[in-house]
Amino acid sequence: MIYIEDVDDMADIKDAAEAIKAEKENGMKVLGIVVEYNPFHFGHLNHLHQSIELVRPEYVVAVMSGNFCQRGEPAMINKFARAEIALRYGVDVVFELPTLYAIQDAGGFALGSIGILERTGVVSDIVFGSESGDLEFISRVANLLTYQSPEFEQSFKRQLKRGYSYPNARKYALMEVLDDKMERLSKSNDILGIEYVKALLKYNSKIRPHVIQRVGADYNDEDYKGRFSSASAIRKAIASGDFSKIGDAIPDWTFKVMKDEFEKGRGPVFWKDLSFILALFRKMNREDFEKYYSFNEGLDLRFVESSRNAGDIQDFIDKVKTKRFTYSRIRRAMLHVLFDMDKEKVELSNEMGPQYLRLLGFTEKGRELLKIMKKKCTIPIISTASLYKNILDETQKKMSEGKGHFEIEPGLYTWQFEKDILASDLYTLMYPNKKEAVAGMDFRQPVRV
Amino acid sequence: MIYIEDVDDMADIKDAAEAIKAEKENGMKVLGIVVEYNPFHFGHLNHLHQSIELVRPEYVVAVMSGNFCQRGEPAMINKFARAEIALRYGVDVVFELPTLYAIQDAGGFALGSIGILERTGVVSDIVFGSESGDLEFISRVANLLTYQSPEFEQSFKRQLKRGYSYPNARKYALMEVLDDKMERLSKSNDILGIEYVKALLKYNSKIRPHVIQRVGADYNDEDYKGRFSSASAIRKAIASGDFSKIGDAIPDWTFKVMKDEFEKGRGPVFWKDLSFILALFRKMNREDFEKYYSFNEGLDLRFVESSRNAGDIQDFIDKVKTKRFTYSRIRRAMLHVLFDMDKEKVELSNEMGPQYLRLLGFTEKGRELLKIMKKKCTIPIISTASLYKNILDETQKKMSEGKGHFEIEPGLYTWQFEKDILASDLYTLMYPNKKEAVAGMDFRQPVRV
Repeated sequence: MIYIEDVDDMADIKDAAEAIKAEKENGMKVLGIVVEYNPFHFGHLNHLHQSIELVRPEYVVAVMSGNFCQRGEPAMINKFARAEIALRYGVDVVFELPTLYAIQDAGGFALGSIGILERTGVVSDIVFGSESGDLEFISRVANLLTYQSPEFEQSFKRQLKRGYSYPNARKYALMEVLDDKMERLSKSNDILGIEYVKALLKYNSKIRPHVIQRVGADYNDEDYKGRFSSASAIRKAIASGDFSKIGDAIPDWTFKVMKDEFEKGRGPVFWKDLSFILALFRKMNREDFEKYYSFNEGLDLRFVESSRNAGDIQDFIDKVKTKRFTYSRIRRAMLHVLFDMDKEKVELSNEMGPQYLRLLGFTEKGRELLKIMKKKCTIPIISTASLYKNILDETQKKMSEGKGHFEIEPGLYTWQFEKDILASDLYTLMYPNKKEAVAGMDFRQPVRV
Repeated sequence: MIYIEDVDDMADIKDAAEAIKAEKENGMKVLGIVVEYNPFHFGHLNHLHQSIELVRPEYVVAVMSGNFCQRGEPAMINKFARAEIALRYGVDVVFELPTLYAIQDAGGFALGSIGILERTGVVSDIVFGSESGDLEFISRVANLLTYQSPEFEQSFKRQLKRGYSYPNARKYALMEVLDDKMERLSKSNDILGIEYVKALLKYNSKIRPHVIQRVGADYNDEDYKGRFSSASAIRKAIASGDFSKIGDAIPDWTFKVMKDEFEKGRGPVFWKDLSFILALFRKMNREDFEKYYSFNEGLDLRFVESSRNAGDIQDFIDKVKTKRFTYSRIRRAMLHVLFDMDKEKVELSNEMGPQYLRLLGFTEKGRELLKIMKKKCTIPIISTASLYKNILDETQKKMSEGKGHFEIEPGLYTWQFEKDILASDLYTLMYPNKKEAVAGMDFRQPVRV
């Protein structure tokens, strides 16, 4: 990887002014996408190409999960390595989805990721995958959920009482209210799509949503199918130790970057290495759990009891599992404890949205976009992590001088960013090579390709 | 192992009264010993036989470290299994040294263990090993340290300033004040012996101390020498996986009990399994460490920095290590964090002494002694762990009714005992067999052989 000194130093007022002028004249299109790339595979490449085809943007911005993903698991390779792959395949700028959003359910994940794209101030269009490919339907549901009718609320509560998990209760309530038996409400991409549109409504965003009908592997399909393998299937193949054999199943840059990371002992990183987390849980009682996000509906009690009765992580998760609590939700809740994700701070974050644009990498072309973005973003860009406090000070100064409108709350900015640093510091502990397992990954510079 | 229902139920007032009468008439001798037995070897057996030979007691009481030992490491097999071995070889009653004392330096270890023996109300003699075999010298030093002269204090501070660790600074100060170059001040058993005598002075104890000159392997000698191997050497041999080959090096019951434990997957337990403790440390800053016992002299800062710069536990310990901080002290400090050993509670415990006699096991003969002890002990006996709150209530009731003198502080009693439960709950997590790695070991009954 190549690092640059600091994009904060590169602002060239004249260039930026001209670029903005040009943008206004041309109605510049910037495509925004939300990704995890764990790891980047041919399905992702295909989706990226189709999205570009559909929108025909001048630039592509991705917001990507950091070192932990929405399934409540550490990513196989770190965020900088994954950002590099994205940049090699046509993304111009990659921002990190702050950890607190990346490890929430579809609703929180969408609030964070759409918040990032919206607050760049430049994204004009987003494209997301969808099983149904039916944007009108998705928007209808999103509107229904945003402006909830009493009829829907009642139905939702009824489903919960029947013991359904949140997502299922919502699905059955919608089916009831819409008088619809449509399969699409149980598809993960459609559900996420609904949350994206809800988030756009919340932010009063002018970004145009588009959907691409999803083809190929279901993302939960764990069967290895060469180029058509899902991310789960690829992770499974890597976990079994056959990395060299899957060269054909993943794009060249994915293979190259992963190979390099693995050779340095910085992966593959797996959840199982977190097994001592049970020690933490055994020290906690119900009240201790209740401070953290996701502990409601009795999940706290299940954590207390299962941590005492289980001998390892998998056993623990199996003991916590009920119809109401999905595996992903349980794993995310475990991370909420590990990272001390206070309930009130997460809820405030969901209300306020993300507080900064953490730059993970950009291309030469992306650099131009960053110049424009610096004039239009409504939350500060952090490219040099060690300067995060200075960046906050400068932003507050600008605000007090009336030089720009920023949607930030200083305490929350700091809290959100320090959680990203903490997540990285615990992530690297899981590197196979103990020499690499040190803290401070965030104090690297963004990747530049 | 065989368990009994509850020794609390077995009090037979008439028998006990007769036994006490008999005891008064005969000047009954009860030998007290302080042990870790990790694991019990021929050196221990020899020491036990010699001690019995020397004192010729009616009964033998041992106070033994629980699941964690003074080296700051988990014991290879759990406390009940180790208690059983002790009972098989001539000890009549085994009490647990509360965890908070077991994982302190020689001073705190001695305060706890002598406190237990003293508060049984029945121990008349203690015997401990000593390199010098010179009780007069040991007593002289203990008195000097208890009634500290200004000359000694000044010398001690001077040695600390030179960068010596606590034990070494104390040694050099003593050598200076005593004008003595004696080797014995650097020997671990003599140092511990000095602390035992200091503790006897502190408790105003009438227990008679005796020493036995230590023969055979140095306890730090890691070379395997058959029957003459040290506990370190035996642990090393077991760690290398050759348990079946060391049958000749350990007494039959040690072999039998360990084999049984290993076959059930309840050992051997090693420190290395605690590696995720670094995650805990990376979440902490200096102030967080300072709350806990042992964090002074800059150890807090070394923990903060080393946890970030080290990739695994061994690397961490090596990075923390200086002349001042011994390996054992570092490991014990790690456990103080893991078990949330608040500085003020540990200091209060050192002032007040142990708050209960936790029974780990007894023989048929030991049962008689327990009857006598129930009338003479000055802290309550806990034989059924689940009843620890009731036992406290009953003790307080007796005290308020003037029915006995107890040296307990209710809050401290609870704090100390709950730390033992916590230590066990984290200990079992390290069992190789994950089915056995559940919490609640303490709620077993004492072993009876």
